[in-house]
Order: sequence, then C-alpha cells, then structure tokens
Amino acid sequence: MRRNRFTAEQVDEKDIEYLKALAHKCRGDILKMTTLAGSGHPGGSMSSIEMYLTLYYFANVDPKDPKNPDRDRIIISHGHTSPGVYSALGNLGFFNIDEAIAYFRLAGSIFEGHVERYVPGVEWSTGNLGQGLSAGCGMAISAKLLKKDFHVFVVMGDGEQQKGQISEARRFAKKYNLSNLTVLIDYNKLQLSGPLSEIMPQNIKENYLADGWEVIEVDGHDFKALYKAIREAIYDNKPTAILAHTIMGKGVSFMENKFEFHGRALKPDEYKKALEELGIEDDLEKYKKMREEFKPSGKHIIEPYTININIGTPFTYEKDAKIDNRGAFGKALADLGKLNVGKEGTTPIAVVDCDLMESVRTHEFGKIAPENFFEVGIQEHNAATLAGALSSQGVITFFADFGVFGVDETYNQHRLNDINFTNLKVIVTHCGLDVGEDGKTHQCIDYIGAFRNLFGFKIIVPADGNQTDRVIRYVAKEFGNFLVAMGRSVTPIITDENGNPLFGGNYEFIYGKMDKVRDGDKAAIIACGPMVAKAVQVWEKLKEKGIKIKVFNFTSPKEIDWNALSEAAKTGFVLTYEDHNVYTGIGSIIAEALLEGGYKVKFKKLGVKEYGLSGKPDALYKFQGLDVDSVVDLIIKELE
Amino acid sequence: MRRNRFTAEQVDEKDIEYLKALAHKCRGDILKMTTLAGSGHPGGSMSSIEMYLTLYYFANVDPKDPKNPDRDRIIISHGHTSPGVYSALGNLGFFNIDEAIAYFRLAGSIFEGHVERYVPGVEWSTGNLGQGLSAGCGMAISAKLLKKDFHVFVVMGDGEQQKGQISEARRFAKKYNLSNLTVLIDYNKLQLSGPLSEIMPQNIKENYLADGWEVIEVDGHDFKALYKAIREAIYDNKPTAILAHTIMGKGVSFMENKFEFHGRALKPDEYKKALEELGIEDDLEKYKKMREEFKPSGKHIIEPYTININIGTPFTYEKDAKIDNRGAFGKALADLGKLNVGKEGTTPIAVVDCDLMESVRTHEFGKIAPENFFEVGIQEHNAATLAGALSSQGVITFFADFGVFGVDETYNQHRLNDINFTNLKVIVTHCGLDVGEDGKTHQCIDYIGAFRNLFGFKIIVPADGNQTDRVIRYVAKEFGNFLVAMGRSVTPIITDENGNPLFGGNYEFIYGKMDKVRDGDKAAIIACGPMVAKAVQVWEKLKEKGIKIKVFNFTSPKEIDWNALSEAAKTGFVLTYEDHNVYTGIGSIIAEALLEGGYKVKFKKLGVKEYGLSGKPDALYKFQGLDVDSVVDLIIKELE
Repeated sequence: MRRNRFTAEQVDEKDIEYLKALAHKCRGDILKMTTLAGSGHPGGSMSSIEMYLTLYYFANVDPKDPKNPDRDRIIISHGHTSPGVYSALGNLGFFNIDEAIAYFRLAGSIFEGHVERYVPGVEWSTGNLGQGLSAGCGMAISAKLLKKDFHVFVVMGDGEQQKGQISEARRFAKKYNLSNLTVLIDYNKLQLSGPLSEIMPQNIKENYLADGWEVIEVDGHDFKALYKAIREAIYDNKPTAILAHTIMGKGVSFMENKFEFHGRALKPDEYKKALEELGIEDDLEKYKKMREEFKPSGKHIIEPYTININIGTPFTYEKDAKIDNRGAFGKALADLGKLNVGKEGTTPIAVVDCDLMESVRTHEFGKIAPENFFEVGIQEHNAATLAGALSSQGVITFFADFGVFGVDETYNQHRLNDINFTNLKVIVTHCGLDVGEDGKTHQCIDYIGAFRNLFGFKIIVPADGNQTDRVIRYVAKEFGNFLVAMGRSVTPIITDENGNPLFGGNYEFIYGKMDKVRDGDKAAIIACGPMVAKAVQVWEKLKEKGIKIKVFNFTSPKEIDWNALSEAAKTGFVLTYEDHNVYTGIGSIIAEALLEGGYKVKFKKLGVKEYGLSGKPDALYKFQGLDVDSVVDLIIKELE
Repeated sequence: MRRNRFTAEQVDEKDIEYLKALAHKCRGDILKMTTLAGSGHPGGSMSSIEMYLTLYYFANVDPKDPKNPDRDRIIISHGHTSPGVYSALGNLGFFNIDEAIAYFRLAGSIFEGHVERYVPGVEWSTGNLGQGLSAGCGMAISAKLLKKDFHVFVVMGDGEQQKGQISEARRFAKKYNLSNLTVLIDYNKLQLSGPLSEIMPQNIKENYLADGWEVIEVDGHDFKALYKAIREAIYDNKPTAILAHTIMGKGVSFMENKFEFHGRALKPDEYKKALEELGIEDDLEKYKKMREEFKPSGKHIIEPYTININIGTPFTYEKDAKIDNRGAFGKALADLGKLNVGKEGTTPIAVVDCDLMESVRTHEFGKIAPENFFEVGIQEHNAATLAGALSSQGVITFFADFGVFGVDETYNQHRLNDINFTNLKVIVTHCGLDVGEDGKTHQCIDYIGAFRNLFGFKIIVPADGNQTDRVIRYVAKEFGNFLVAMGRSVTPIITDENGNPLFGGNYEFIYGKMDKVRDGDKAAIIACGPMVAKAVQVWEKLKEKGIKIKVFNFTSPKEIDWNALSEAAKTGFVLTYEDHNVYTGIGSIIAEALLEGGYKVKFKKLGVKEYGLSGKPDALYKFQGLDVDSVVDLIIKELE
C-alpha cells in the first residue's frame, strides 16, 4: 500500500500526459479563484503546481480516504499558495474543485487564504513562513512512535528559506537521520517585494549541504524530472532537499517572472487575457453565482483523537517534603513513561527538550524511554512547532522548557499550534521572580499574560508538588493544549489547617476549580503558584494577630470559579497575589470577574511591577513588596 | 584614536605577559564570584576569558570613558559568561573588580547573572541566546548613520549557534557587507547538558562559509594567535567569524572539558582545590564580608539620548478621504524622512523592513532615504533585535511589519529590547479581523494582550489617518519603546458632529488621553482602532431611534484617562468595542479600571471571541457579532 506510486522506476507516459493536462487546468482554476475572490497568491501557486500534482498523484494519499493513518503526509509550508494546493487537490478528487474555485477566501468556507487542516488533503495549517519543515520533522518522528512507515513531504517557498527556524529543523532532521522526510523547494527566485538576490541573497543549496543534507536540483515544471528526483530522495535514506527551479506565474506570459504576482490577483481584464492565452474557457459567471449563494456549514474543527493511557496513582509528598514543582513534574512524567511507553494499545507519549533536561526534570523520562525523548538543542522555535505537529499525529507530547523559552520565545509557534488543534502539553519551569539569580532575561513573568491570548490553550499553575503531580497526569489524559507553569525553587507542601497535605491522597485535580486553602472572614487572598504557600504564611501571621482571612489557590487562571469567587468577595476585601506581571495575570482576571459578577469589594492586586533583579528570590520579592511581611502589613493597614 | 591597539602588526611580548597574568587572576575571580554567589556559569567564562581580555585590552575601548561615542562596541551574546566578562572588565579598570566579585548575583547590584547594560563596558543586555549577532548587526549599521567608524565585536557561545536567528543575522551582515563586524565563537564543544556532538551536531564553520562569511580558526587560549586573527578579521573588510577552539573550565584540571561546569558554581571544597591548583590565595572571607554589608544604590537605568528632529506639520485628511492608517503612517514617515534625513545636526532615522515595504507603506521612505532603509527579508527575529540595537545607538528606528510578525513572532525579541531601554518604534499594520482574507494565521488579535506584558512599551492604537499621522510624529520625537497598531483597510475619517475631522488641523496627540468622539447619556462605547468609526455608526443609528450614547476613542490602552472613564461610567452602561481578543484587550483593561475606580455600572465587552475566518472584514465581524447592526441591537436590548 505504501508509496504505491513512487515505487515504479519509470513513470508512465500516460500519467505524464494526464498530469500535464491537469496542470494546465489547474492554472486556469488558480486564476479563476483568485480573480473571483479579488485577492490571493497566484504567482507561487503557478510555480508550485507541478510539484503539488506530482506529490498528490504519486504519493501514498487517497482522495477517498484522506485521513488514512498510513498515508504519506504532505505539508505545504508556504500556505499562501493555497490556490495551487486547492486546485491540485480538487482536480485529483479530494473534494469538489468547483467549490474551491467558488468559495475561495469566502467567510465560512474551508478554502481559506492560507491552507487549513479542515481541507481534505491538507495536513497542517500554515501561513506564517518558516514553520513547515519543523512540522515535517514532528510528523516524521511520529511515524516511528506510531509504528508506521509513511513518508513526509514538505513543500516550501524559496523566500521563506531566509527564516532561521528552517536551519534549526534541518539540523534536527540530520541528527535524527529522518530518512522519511523529503523537502521540495519552489525555487522561483522571487519573493513578495522583489528578487531574492536583491531582498535577501541566500545560498540555499549551500545552506542545506552545510547542514549535511542531500540536495537534488531539478526543473520544477518537468513532471518526469520531478518524479525521478522525488523517488531518489525517498529511497536514499537521508534527509534530502529537492531544489526545484521554477518560474513565478508560469504559464501566462505576462505573469512569468514578475514578483508583483506573488501576492495579487489578476484584474478582470488581465484575467481574460490570461485565460485566452491559456485557451481556457472563461466560466467565471458560474462560480460567481455559486459564491453569491454560498451558505456556511457551521464551525470547522479537527476531531480530537482518542487517548488511551494509564495515568497511574498520584504520588503524595508529605508536609515536610523538599520538592520543587519541576521535580514533581519530572517524577510524574517518569511514572507515566514507566506505565505506558512500550505498552501495547496505549497512546504514545513523547518529550521534547531544548538542552535543559536536568533543569526541567525530564531526564528521568529520557532514561526510561530514550526512543520517546527528543533532544532538539538550543532551537526552541523548531522544538515548539515540531512538538505541536508531533502531538497532532496521535502522540501525547510534552514540550518542557524554561518559561522565557516555552512562552516568550515560542509564543507565535504555539499560536499556530493552537490554530492547528494540537494536543500539546507545554510545561514551563523557571517562571517568575522565583528564578532568582539568572535575572530579568530569564524571569518569565508573563506566562498567563501571554497565553491568555491563545483561545485553545488552557493554563494551569499548580501550587505545590502534590498538585503538580496530579495536574501532569490530568493533562496527559485530556486532549488539547495546556500550559502548565511553575517556578524554580522548592515550594512548601500546601497543607490543610490540620497539617495534612491539601493536594495529596485522593485529592483530584479539577480544571477550573479554585481551591480554598484557608478560611477566614476579614479578607481573601487569591494566590497563584509559589505565592499560595506565601499566602498561607500571611494567614498564619495574621492569625497570630487575631485576623482571620481566606486563602484561595487560583490554579486555572483562564476559568472563573464563581462559587469560590463569590465566597471570596463576601469578605469585602479581595487581594490577588502572584509571581507574575501585576497588570496581566490573575489580578487583571479577577478584577474583571469581580466587575462582571457585580461584586462590590475592596480590591488590591499584588504582583511584579517591573523587570526583576538578579538575586535570591526572597530578596527580589521584597524589592517588589511581595514578601510575606509586606503583605501582612498591607492587609492590616487596609483593614484599619 | 580608533583601533589604537589592533593597529600594530605584531603584539608586544610585554602585553602578552601582562594578559597571561591577568587571565590567571581572572580565572580565580570567576571561581570566587560564582562560589560566593552559589550559582553562575564558570565553565564558559573560563573558556572565553582570553577572548574577553584580548578584546577589552586591544580594542578601542577606554575604561575611563566607557561611553565614548567613538568606542568599539563589544557585545557578549552568551550573557551567562558574565563572571568572565566582569572579571576581564574589572581587572582592566572599567570598575572595581572587588565589587564584582563580592556583589555578583546579589539583588540590587549591577553585576547580574546575565550581563546588563548598566555595567561599564557592557553594550547589550543578553541572556536568551542567539540574539547577540543581530544586535551586532544593528550596531554595525548605526556606525554609518552616525558617521562613525567604530568596529563591532560579537562574542558568542558555540551552543547558541544552533539558534536559527544567527543564520538570519549572518545573511544580513553579508548582504550589507558589514566589514566593521567581527564574530568570535567560544568553541569549547560543550553545551549545558552535554557535548554539542551529542546534543545537536552542527557544522558551525560550514554554516558561516555557506552564508558567505570568512572563517578563521584559532586557539582561543593563545593571546598572540587571537590578536593576529582579530586583526586580520578587522582589516579584511568582510564579515568574519573567528572560531576559537577552547576548553571549557580551562585552567583547573578537574573542570576542563566537563560540561557540568557550564552552569554550576564550585562547591566550597572544589573551590579550595581549584584555587590551590591555580596557586591563588583564597580570600573569599573578605568578599563574603563585603557581600553581607552590601547596600543597593537605587534603580539602575540607561539614560535616554537627546532626540533632535523636525516633526514637521501634520497632514489633515478631509472627511471623505480614502486613507488607511498604514497609508497615513507611510506618508508621515516619508515626511519625517524628507525633513530630517541628511540634515546636519538631526538625529538619524532608520526603517527596518521584512519584505513587506509596500504593504506596510514604508517604501516611500525607502525611496527618499535609501541609506536609512534596511531590507532584512523574511527574517523577523533578526530584524526585531537588529532594530532594537540600532535604536539604542542614537538612531530613531521604525520596525514596521504585519502584526503577527511584529508582535507575535518577535515577542521575545521585543521583550529583550525593552530590557535594553531601546528607542524602538514598532509599527504594526494588518492587525485584527480587519486583515480579512489572509485568515487566522495573519490576523493579529493580541497586539494589546501581548505588549501589555512589556513594562517599557507604550501602546498606541490610532483611530484614523489623521490621528495616525500625529501619532507617528509624536513617537518619533519621544524617546522610548512604542507599539503603534493599525488594521489593513481604509478607515473612515473620524469627524466631530459637525462633520469636521476630529483629529485634523491643530489637534495634538496626547499620550494617555481618551478622546470623546460623540456625546450622549444612555451608554458609553469605549472603542479602539477600526471600531471607533463603527461606534460612530452605531451612535448614528441609535440617534435615529432617539437613543444618544457617548463614544470614546481609547488610543492609549495601557493608560487610564480617569476623567474620561468617569464620564463614561456616569451613563451607567459601558461597552468596550475592539478588533482584538475580547479577553485580553481594552475590555479587560477597562473592566479592571472600572472595578479599581469603584464605578458601579453595567458593563459589556465586545471583541474577537475565537480565531477568525478568511473573508471580507465585514463578514468576519458579523460572524463574531461585531458588526454595527449587532451592536445597535445589543445596546437597545440592554437598555430595555
């Protein structure tokens, strides 16, 4: 079944004739859909079209069964060539080509301006350039974990070769010798605003060779040559790039080699002239009518896959345990590894690391399951996209990194993962001033503020080792994107008033629930992460002075637990307390909820007001008025 | 004066002897400061130390005048080797070395865990890897604009070569033939968690050669060889990289070639053994005492430079003008170019572009001032850092890009620019659903939500072409980091009730002021960006029905205009209306302000609730209930 077509050494002449005719029709379709929509990218679509047809025709993809788990994966990295992709897929039977022509770039249609996973045959939603090869790496490694032998093809533009993330992906592919990965580059030598040689000169071939890849140069409009090159690339058992020399706007004389047609549709008169030259009938009126009558068919989503793992029995750390949350994460992860990796019938689990395995505590998992542990080095952009793509293929993927890398440096990669409905667990350690001596560049104080923007990502900030353990098991079994954020230091185990671990034993983590940690009536501290333990200390000191307050643990900052909030508000004075930018974290979220809930309370927010210093966490907290004594004093003053 | 030391063809033996002795002392100092602080990175500090001493000794830098505008710029990209940097600088007289040893990584001291610009001799705060060469490119191009002929040296780690951003910077340096740029790589072949060859194999030399650089290999512990190589690199008039073969932990037998000493300080017994081996006296007690007695000396900031430009006379677009905000930006920028570029005594202005000059409308400026226009290609990470560094050197720098690239893709680069007190104007176009057909990957709906996190960045979202014009002139003359966000489409000119342009004529933009656009008493819409014009339409439709509401333009979303908010609140019903993620933009900010201000009002927020579709903006707004009719209906319903 696999590679059923590229197996033949020679390509059949009849196939070539068929494809040539199809390419011709596709060129017309590309012009029709872009002119009808009044926007889009015809130039690169026309230079890529022979590549698209060769791949979708000869690779192991079935128009009637486009989600077959054994299929080859074809990723289009330069997603703006969607007219080329849609015309190739539609004309090969993946869907009704007329619909693609008529509904291109129409609100509610699946045929969006950049390729989307909704479209049968499209494996990865792209648009922002330079990420496709990383996604290809993720899918290529998924094959092994899924015990499949599919091939992954990544088609890229030449302009996007300028993106540094591609060099990261090349090195990863070489390191892991991803012989099931083949790159095709549409080398039309033009980018949006001019020739590559003027905008940003680059030795593309030398760049691939320097990273240890094979490079085959070929005429990208010659089906026979393309077939031969792709076949060679598949069977050479090395990561190989095919540099396909092409012509932007190929097929229409006045469009050829003109960079202005990279990003603009033909105007009606140009369109007529082009169709005449191609000898293709102008039936735009038919499509115009279809477009006018279009009815959106509801929301487009990608169905989650079923997760089947054993999450085991949570560990309970006793009240005097010296455990940091990252340590608890590492232990839970190792436990998941032991219980599941290599077990028949379970969903594979993978871990992606960026040269920080001991710091982020994934090294134990790495020892238990070396085949499921991927060391990407200091290449966070590649790692983030690769992890997302891997997670989309039926592999529960943990991407563990420092907060500044896993949140700040890779923010846009995760935005695109989110758009791709991935199943990624971003575990970030070393968040907050709690990082201490490494200083401001390394203190991630926006893990909530940044990821609040990503609709699909759920955020969890566990309070101690026990809760971390349960959260990690929870996110492993729940489909979807999660950010789990934690500090660097040892965190006291949170106990109840009797001294028993609050999140130990049979405590079950429920996403969205705010935990009451201490009771009182004068005020309520809503705390997050490492500040929960400090809030308990505040509670103790105030209790000594005869003042009893409530303490809540706000573990799921994107969800409001209205019952708990209501209880907090009843005290008349709510304080938020976070190791995070005070303007964008739980303070902001709780303030909004209090307003929207109509609660009339005194409100104060405590958090990080400026970039942190370099020193012991407690000293840094004190500098920003976040130490226990400052909070105690503040509450006493406010209650006077 | 320039390059006064590297001018000599042969290096003096006496200098070599002096430096050897100094390197020996520095090794001891590195161990002292890291052991005393109990953390830090001794390994790479000891492999880099000969490079640091050679540069700081022979380059045109003066310990007594470290801010001299003619000085060579030395950037340390692998900022974690701060113990090496501080020991070299301190021992060469840039500051008191004893203070560096005693106060390393102590809260409130300038000697932070990663190098900071506060420290005399440090040009750029680094920490997150892979950005130093981009900063070097920015400083190298600033030389020409400032009519200086200083040289820029960038010292980097070998592990960080894995970061793709470095390949982007290499290509930029080659394109602009930055002959005043020299790279030194500390090639100790180990990274945090193991040998490079295991963690992420890379052909560093071939990578540089493939991008057209010269490469010189040298023994990084041999002063004579280093001097010769650096001299050759300076005078070859090409961007050159010196690959300095070194030994991690060099100088202490049990530390050499051990990756564990990349990131951990010696324990007391190891420290004693190391100092004995080095034959250096253990005087840690003295420093311990100093450390205990340390008093922080207040906040550390970098002084802004004086801006001297002619901002000209604002353009006024009349009420029927068909102008998009990006067009108005482009015209104002071109005007600034005409009025200032090449004029004696004015602060230079530069524009950095990423292959989008026509779309972001910087092309006119590019024609007027081609020498001040830098085309970086599709290399946003490099462009963002480069622009920040350029702006730090006395050049008012505009980095113009689509929102998804200028905000999302380069978020961390701007975070580090912000930490560096840069003077960067990030102008992002194509924000919001207003982008339309390019779809969700290209719709930046988090420009406020993301940049709210960056303490130093001010955010401005102009409402129309007139306000955009004035905002651009304003940010040009104000020192500091600004994000100016705008949509893609033509925006109606906002007028007063008499039909005169509200932001035309003598209107002056005041940062932080909320503009009242329409008056009424039943409700107040607080709108932002393209929604201001829509809010005016809502006002008109409601007026026809006898309902008068207020409309405010919330142009500076990080600042609350309490007077205006108070006036809005008096209506009893406040709605926010934004082309932005509804959870993280002005809705969230106004809600918090209403709570904190103690206003008791009905509150609704309207904004983007899910990733957008691909289609005409108006269709996309309708899908999310953000079209004028939906808002009219909502207000009527709420007022019933």
